Amino acid sequence: MRKTALLAALAATALPFSAFAQGRPAPAPAPAVSAEVAALRDAALKDDVAYDIVEGLTTEVGPRLAGTEAEARARDWAVQKLTALGFKNVRIETTPMSVWVRGVETGEVVAPFPQKLHLTALGGSGATPPEGITAEIVYFPSFADLQRAPEGSLKGKIAFVSNAMVATQDGSSYGQFGAARFVGPGIAAQKGAIAMVIRSIGSDHGRGPHTGQTNFPKGVAPIPAAALSTSDADNLSRMVARGQPIKLHLVLTPRETGQHDTGNVIAEVPGTDPNAGLIVVGGHLDSWDLGTGAIDDASGVAITAAAAKRLLDGPAPRRTIRVVWFGDEETGGAGAAAYFAAHKNERHDLVAESDFGADRIWRVEFNLPDSAKPAGDRVAAALAPLGIVRGTALGGDGADIALLVKSGVAAIDLNQSGTRYFDYHHTPEDTLERIDPEQLRQNVAAWTAMLAVIANAPEEIGTTKAKP
Amino acid sequence: MRKTALLAALAATALPFSAFAQGRPAPAPAPAVSAEVAALRDAALKDDVAYDIVEGLTTEVGPRLAGTEAEARARDWAVQKLTALGFKNVRIETTPMSVWVRGVETGEVVAPFPQKLHLTALGGSGATPPEGITAEIVYFPSFADLQRAPEGSLKGKIAFVSNAMVATQDGSSYGQFGAARFVGPGIAAQKGAIAMVIRSIGSDHGRGPHTGQTNFPKGVAPIPAAALSTSDADNLSRMVARGQPIKLHLVLTPRETGQHDTGNVIAEVPGTDPNAGLIVVGGHLDSWDLGTGAIDDASGVAITAAAAKRLLDGPAPRRTIRVVWFGDEETGGAGAAAYFAAHKNERHDLVAESDFGADRIWRVEFNLPDSAKPAGDRVAAALAPLGIVRGTALGGDGADIALLVKSGVAAIDLNQSGTRYFDYHHTPEDTLERIDPEQLRQNVAAWTAMLAVIANAPEEIGTTKAKP
Repeated sequence: MRKTALLAALAATALPFSAFAQGRPAPAPAPAVSAEVAALRDAALKDDVAYDIVEGLTTEVGPRLAGTEAEARARDWAVQKLTALGFKNVRIETTPMSVWVRGVETGEVVAPFPQKLHLTALGGSGATPPEGITAEIVYFPSFADLQRAPEGSLKGKIAFVSNAMVATQDGSSYGQFGAARFVGPGIAAQKGAIAMVIRSIGSDHGRGPHTGQTNFPKGVAPIPAAALSTSDADNLSRMVARGQPIKLHLVLTPRETGQHDTGNVIAEVPGTDPNAGLIVVGGHLDSWDLGTGAIDDASGVAITAAAAKRLLDGPAPRRTIRVVWFGDEETGGAGAAAYFAAHKNERHDLVAESDFGADRIWRVEFNLPDSAKPAGDRVAAALAPLGIVRGTALGGDGADIALLVKSGVAAIDLNQSGTRYFDYHHTPEDTLERIDPEQLRQNVAAWTAMLAVIANAPEEIGTTKAKP
Repeated sequence: MRKTALLAALAATALPFSAFAQGRPAPAPAPAVSAEVAALRDAALKDDVAYDIVEGLTTEVGPRLAGTEAEARARDWAVQKLTALGFKNVRIETTPMSVWVRGVETGEVVAPFPQKLHLTALGGSGATPPEGITAEIVYFPSFADLQRAPEGSLKGKIAFVSNAMVATQDGSSYGQFGAARFVGPGIAAQKGAIAMVIRSIGSDHGRGPHTGQTNFPKGVAPIPAAALSTSDADNLSRMVARGQPIKLHLVLTPRETGQHDTGNVIAEVPGTDPNAGLIVVGGHLDSWDLGTGAIDDASGVAITAAAAKRLLDGPAPRRTIRVVWFGDEETGGAGAAAYFAAHKNERHDLVAESDFGADRIWRVEFNLPDSAKPAGDRVAAALAPLGIVRGTALGGDGADIALLVKSGVAAIDLNQSGTRYFDYHHTPEDTLERIDPEQLRQNVAAWTAMLAVIANAPEEIGTTKAKP
């Protein structure tokens, strides 16, 4: 067997390479893919609906920060679009949230090498006075170095953590290196820092800084906290390497604007079996304010709606497919919390979220009860011709579906390839140009196949052993 | 002969493909490359001096707009660096110039699809009132469409030209599509426009706008003129395609700050023959203010100085090599004009400028008098092992050397590959990250070989038939 053929066989059977290397027996044959599922899947490889949604949302609405009037415009746009597509029970469910908005944001090295820095405030950042602050930096190559800094050692200083994230296909480097953003400013504040700058949590080498939420512990007053572009952070690190003290001037004037509405937009493909549970698929409608939210997450709402639309246009499925475009995924998850509070007592058979761009889906992972495992096998078989491998970890990722998954609802993850996602994530560069129409169509085909199998599965889909 | 071998042979002989296709005779054999030249060239493939200069200038000085204190700091930095490298007669020659500086610059679509636009003022742009202007756009797909607009038809409007430049290896698309920037705002002003926005003259698909000088005809008051990022321009074009009138709000507050000094930094490798003419090589020290001027043109000053340094460290060449780091190439060429005024009566045997980034040199072109043609053949032979083809057009490109070339000084162009240069040119993205150290070294090797041949050429190098 030639090596490429061996690798293809391995991909098709989704066994780790070591299984063959150790001479284990071949796996059980995959179930046959029904002609209906295959036809739906293959037709979706010519889909135009998903691109139309991404193009429309980024062009006609653009950035849509949670709780702002732009997000409200996006909800109105969504209702119009989903209604035009023929979905049933299209509606908005609003909920109040605390809203944070960006202000002025400038930064510069004052000494010894004066030059401007490209930076952006992190969500939840505190503000400097309008005239800004000037202070010396304390340099930490890694988040762990910041954690080890003695109490009080940052008094009057600006902390600078420069850890560099490198792209991974599964996005796992985000969780690890992202800590500098998620909780770094809170830690720096507790050690006396008057502000913090981080190297953007991103895999690019450009000037567009990556924003994103940071969270301060209860009782810790938010300090000004900003992400430098990776290029600016590396420049600042080179200055640090010269050995002289470095002074920064920062002006960051974000502010809290109080309580405003966010909301979820909901649309349905009605099912035929009133006793079957709901299938919830979707993504989030809100975006960060720097880009136009193409890969995060116009593509997610577009892919899931385009796939559901393919079932809408055919024979009614057994289970109702509910498309949910969540509000406020980015700054706190108020939309997801509101959905769970309002709908947790309805029977949900499965949830799945698309929130990792629109590059090709390379892997599927499941969290299904034993009763539904055969349906999972049929999903994996239907996805294999799209080049999708079956992973071994438990599915159920996605901030918007976390509460449902935790409550025991089954989940399937269709994992997009993340090798370039963090070049653009939360930056001004998250725009329509980042969408590859061919890969977007592969996404729609995968979601269509998954929905076609699960929505019509004759098996009962009960409660899972929830993820911890 | 296999096709790849045929192509390699063609590259080596620098004959157009059609020459072989038509069965013409083989060219005369190339001259042998002297062992000294080959050794200098090959040692330069391990050069670290050029990278050190680019890294230092971008880190310790950063942006250095012509006529500003940042450009003055760059001159001081340059004197220190060139002196430390051992060059002789290191000095600054200053000259006054009119200085334009950037102010506030924001833009947004007001209706029908409100969102912010990433833009930057063009050099020489006029200013809006501090509160900005709001007006409808008139859309022109190309510069020619703007030219054809009737007199007075833009009264009270903002002109928008969206022509899209595509990268070319020789950079020729810049000249063609750049007209929208070079002279477009002046034309729009003459037709009554109150402002103009263009799609950035660049080959990227990102959010970093490309600045650059625009020139208004005598007697035409500058109007506010800005470049949208290519991504924003394409978004605006998609809005235009929806068919509704589009209103923009623009705030651009650049201003003229009066007369300030720019200057050239000069350093020499003294020659042994007092009767031989000078060889002038260099690039420009100033940069636009958005990036740190790595490819435009820290790399040019670095490559030429690093190559000259290799001759400085060996036996003294016959001809004096004068390294000139010009001031104000970007906004008007005051440095080049001052050099010409001060030095035009000295005997110059050859000029050559590096101002097209640091990707690999792919072509050499000559403008030599007949007396020096054998030296040109030896240069071409010494460059061929670096993969460099001999072009057929007349050399002598480069804004800083144009006056010397016009006066009849011989010239050699070492053309960098421009396939990604205009992704970054005049944008915030022109930073150290754009420098590929390996390709930078190939540049140094090519310049070293050229200098080694020409500086020691026994031939007289007289006056050329200057380019028209």
